[in-house]
Amino acid sequence: MENVINDLVGYNNLKIVQNNSYFNFSLESVILPRFCILRDNMKIMDLCTGNAPIPLILSTLTNSKIIGVEVQKEIYDLAIQSVKLNNLEDRINILNIDANKVCDMFQTDTFDLITCNPPYFKYTESSNLNDNLVKSIARHEILITIEDIIKISRKLLKNGGSFTFVHRASRLSEILMILKNNNFEVKRLRILYPKVGMDANLVLIDARKNAKSDMKVLYPLICHNEDGSYTDEVLEMFCRRKDGTEKL
Amino acid sequence: MENVINDLVGYNNLKIVQNNSYFNFSLESVILPRFCILRDNMKIMDLCTGNAPIPLILSTLTNSKIIGVEVQKEIYDLAIQSVKLNNLEDRINILNIDANKVCDMFQTDTFDLITCNPPYFKYTESSNLNDNLVKSIARHEILITIEDIIKISRKLLKNGGSFTFVHRASRLSEILMILKNNNFEVKRLRILYPKVGMDANLVLIDARKNAKSDMKVLYPLICHNEDGSYTDEVLEMFCRRKDGTEKL
Repeated sequence: MENVINDLVGYNNLKIVQNNSYFNFSLESVILPRFCILRDNMKIMDLCTGNAPIPLILSTLTNSKIIGVEVQKEIYDLAIQSVKLNNLEDRINILNIDANKVCDMFQTDTFDLITCNPPYFKYTESSNLNDNLVKSIARHEILITIEDIIKISRKLLKNGGSFTFVHRASRLSEILMILKNNNFEVKRLRILYPKVGMDANLVLIDARKNAKSDMKVLYPLICHNEDGSYTDEVLEMFCRRKDGTEKL
Repeated sequence: MENVINDLVGYNNLKIVQNNSYFNFSLESVILPRFCILRDNMKIMDLCTGNAPIPLILSTLTNSKIIGVEVQKEIYDLAIQSVKLNNLEDRINILNIDANKVCDMFQTDTFDLITCNPPYFKYTESSNLNDNLVKSIARHEILITIEDIIKISRKLLKNGGSFTFVHRASRLSEILMILKNNNFEVKRLRILYPKVGMDANLVLIDARKNAKSDMKVLYPLICHNEDGSYTDEVLEMFCRRKDGTEKL
């Protein structure tokens, strides 16, 4: 498949380079940056950055410099193209390295925010993997697990710095334990439901390094209406009005 | 204050004996039994039973025998009166003992379901305690902590048996860790919000002893409408129609 250039819908002329064989940005990539508590001049890293939708959207919400980390060369190439296409080379720096190696390259205790939309699924011999290895690596914990990512974040974040990420609701219990065991305290938890009346599919978590225990479970986010269209709150995140016109 | 006899609203002529100086049943006592997965002929225990609202409501939903455990004599006396008043002595057995001692009285690995609406607040020297010691013990972890209750449940429950309880949303992370450390897997989690747009205040948890990890985060429960009245789903739990008439 050829690479295609798509609008990052609603984001002020942002373009994103995608390739259906590898990777398309997901709803989570739009919701996660909106969940982050941002200010200017933060030091931000996005792990498992894919084709860089999260750094791209973050760049519209903060003037901070953002480092994106993507291990897979094929997807890294898409990210690099997107950054160039949007003239964001001075704001977004994409690295083609294994996230497990990132601690060797940066000083510990220096980042304010680490974001991540990680591989969701545990990898076992019996995992029902996609034939496409690039996609499988993006979706399954083949090269990196959530525990690895939490340990990396623990090293790189300042005290009080935030690891803000999205994951599967079914793994919430396990993930909260790994966070606790690595001296993170969850400050904000928001649960995402596909539709009214359905079980949750995703969770947004804002965990702070060496912080005091004081957890807020925020009002839930319902993503889709009965007819499959996005709910008003999600449309708002796409900077769209209900009638489909852009706000920007 | 005098004891008063109140209707356990909507529950088919159930009466409950209360005393404002000690203890009145709360919304949680109505919501928790409805969250339990019940069948007939279960072996059920309700820890920190108070004036026994949970056993009383459970008795309308299952024919199982229910043991209630209440350490405070003043509240136990209310529970006993309620059980007698409703002629449920053959179904509900209230014990005036410290829950920490309950493992000495019953065989391990024998219960199907343990329910609990426990004291919510951590107890520290600086705790802002109620002047009323009876109320303080019901609300703060003075005589028993959630960790104690989880350890007791672990002993008494069969493999796969359920510890189904309610607690503060702010303590979710800590509680999930204690559950994991005691070989419980959370099967169902439901989060309660006081009103639309507000942070969660309570969580309902169904944790199973020595079960496989497979967690569902159920659709949230909003308890009150904007005007403070109960939402339809809560009214339903009180067996009431929206117009206030009883369904039974």
